[in-house]
Amino acid sequence: MGRFSVEVKVMPRRALLDPQGQAVEHALSALGFPSVSDVRVGKAMTLELERPDRAQAERDARSMCERLLANPVTEDFTVSVKAVE
Amino acid sequence: MGRFSVEVKVMPRRALLDPQGQAVEHALSALGFPSVSDVRVGKAMTLELERPDRAQAERDARSMCERLLANPVTEDFTVSVKAVE
Repeated sequence: MGRFSVEVKVMPRRALLDPQGQAVEHALSALGFPSVSDVRVGKAMTLELERPDRAQAERDARSMCERLLANPVTEDFTVSVKAVE
Repeated sequence: MGRFSVEVKVMPRRALLDPQGQAVEHALSALGFPSVSDVRVGKAMTLELERPDRAQAERDARSMCERLLANPVTEDFTVSVKAVE
């Protein structure tokens, strides 16, 4: 068994409006940050996993995204897996 | 003026409880993913910025985190800046 550190990023799809991103964009502009655009807000998750090998860890991490962590209709996700130690 | 793409990750501090992470951990276990631990849930943000150079873009991105995007008491952030084109 190996120990793996997984980073997941879940973002709203490009084609969809992102109201939270727009709110942040307006707030940044009100705070005096000019020329900020395309703000998008998603979720970052980290977790640790014990699996026989890295391929299995990555497969399980993607399955977690598909079944729980991301909404397949509105969000895209990326997964990055690193061995620990 | 250059155009820069900024990725921000805001995570709850290590020393603090992360109730959202614990909820996800329990849900993953209930879904049949064993040996998952240390789940932490934070925010991922992307934005675009026009600035004279990369150093200025990075300085402004960090300032955005300190003033709006992250809570300095409970969260840590990382910033990564890439030139566009």
